[in-house]
Amino acid sequence: MAKVGVVLSGCGVFDGSEIHEAVITLLALDRAGAEIICMAPNAPQLHVVNHLTGEVAEGESRNILVESARIARGAIKDMATVTAADIDALVLPGGFGAAKNLCDFAINGPECQVNPEVSRLVSEVVAAKKPLAAICIAPALIARILSQAGKAPQVTIGTDPGTAEAINAMGAVHINKTVEEFVVDENLNILTTPAYMLAGSIKEAADGIEATIQDLMTRL
Amino acid sequence: MAKVGVVLSGCGVFDGSEIHEAVITLLALDRAGAEIICMAPNAPQLHVVNHLTGEVAEGESRNILVESARIARGAIKDMATVTAADIDALVLPGGFGAAKNLCDFAINGPECQVNPEVSRLVSEVVAAKKPLAAICIAPALIARILSQAGKAPQVTIGTDPGTAEAINAMGAVHINKTVEEFVVDENLNILTTPAYMLAGSIKEAADGIEATIQDLMTRL
Repeated sequence: MAKVGVVLSGCGVFDGSEIHEAVITLLALDRAGAEIICMAPNAPQLHVVNHLTGEVAEGESRNILVESARIARGAIKDMATVTAADIDALVLPGGFGAAKNLCDFAINGPECQVNPEVSRLVSEVVAAKKPLAAICIAPALIARILSQAGKAPQVTIGTDPGTAEAINAMGAVHINKTVEEFVVDENLNILTTPAYMLAGSIKEAADGIEATIQDLMTRL
Repeated sequence: MAKVGVVLSGCGVFDGSEIHEAVITLLALDRAGAEIICMAPNAPQLHVVNHLTGEVAEGESRNILVESARIARGAIKDMATVTAADIDALVLPGGFGAAKNLCDFAINGPECQVNPEVSRLVSEVVAAKKPLAAICIAPALIARILSQAGKAPQVTIGTDPGTAEAINAMGAVHINKTVEEFVVDENLNILTTPAYMLAGSIKEAADGIEATIQDLMTRL
């Protein structure tokens, strides 16, 4: 049974993992016969957002790993304990957590810094030529890690001009795609799909994620 | 387009809505062409559980509606503002939130008290003969509301003997079912399915929920 790592970044679109994207990923992997290994960095979130009002909850603090455990029903590992040898593929769902907690792209754009454990594991997986899928805004993170390593991954986050420009500015190559499509960088074995960067509903996000996961599983 | 209400109870299996069940419900409804109206009571959760350790987070407090908004991506209503006239059907996903926040079944078993807005809306929907689906432990809540109104709904929570006994003690009729099955009470137009009361994986939960939602949609 193939082991697929899923990197979570909290629990909720505005300050953590996009919950729909994460659950659709888990379901697609389970239906494809994968053994799922959820993981997250053991570190504080950038902030907590009240998802009813959209406002930052001043004075509140939550931990990325602890909140990600909600999506994983408690079955989750500290990312620092996982290496590429433990998994056959890696998937990063989106949500602002990918751009606020796994790196600081939401604040610093193309000059963003990446969480060291995220950078390490992504680099290990790509070096091992194991397949990697990144969803929604998570491709920006992949673009940053690999561009800094002298690679120029081809990725999509959909069609948002500002985000596409930031990805190109890092040294990666952005390709416009619709919500049900995905980009394959065959050289680096990396798949990316827009999901809620473009989706107007959960089924639109699901169509693209399911297609991406199905392709990922053919690479194992 | 049929309008289907989805009652959330927080965000996380141990103190709120079971996230997988909630998302699978939303996806199945969207794919079936429903307009989804998420809602939750505007009230404090019973408690907050650290989902990494399973321990209660002492001194922490969260609001059911605010946390449910994470699953709904902010598109959620205070349940007090929704009546049966606003919806064509109602779905209650499970998770401990259904037994801790929507009622206190987790503490008081068959003698549990139900949140007044939950009790009101469920009673309105059943009185209007509009279809209602309850997932996982949520059927216990339905059993309590309707038994107190002199009805004896037929429901399932799977096969757990203690929970089944508590449901029968309320005056409802528990029927054992496997995870991919659901019970239909044709008289009351109520569907129930075990999901994570029995599921060993997300795909098992999805199989039962998807079948239940598909049947629900034929009743509109």
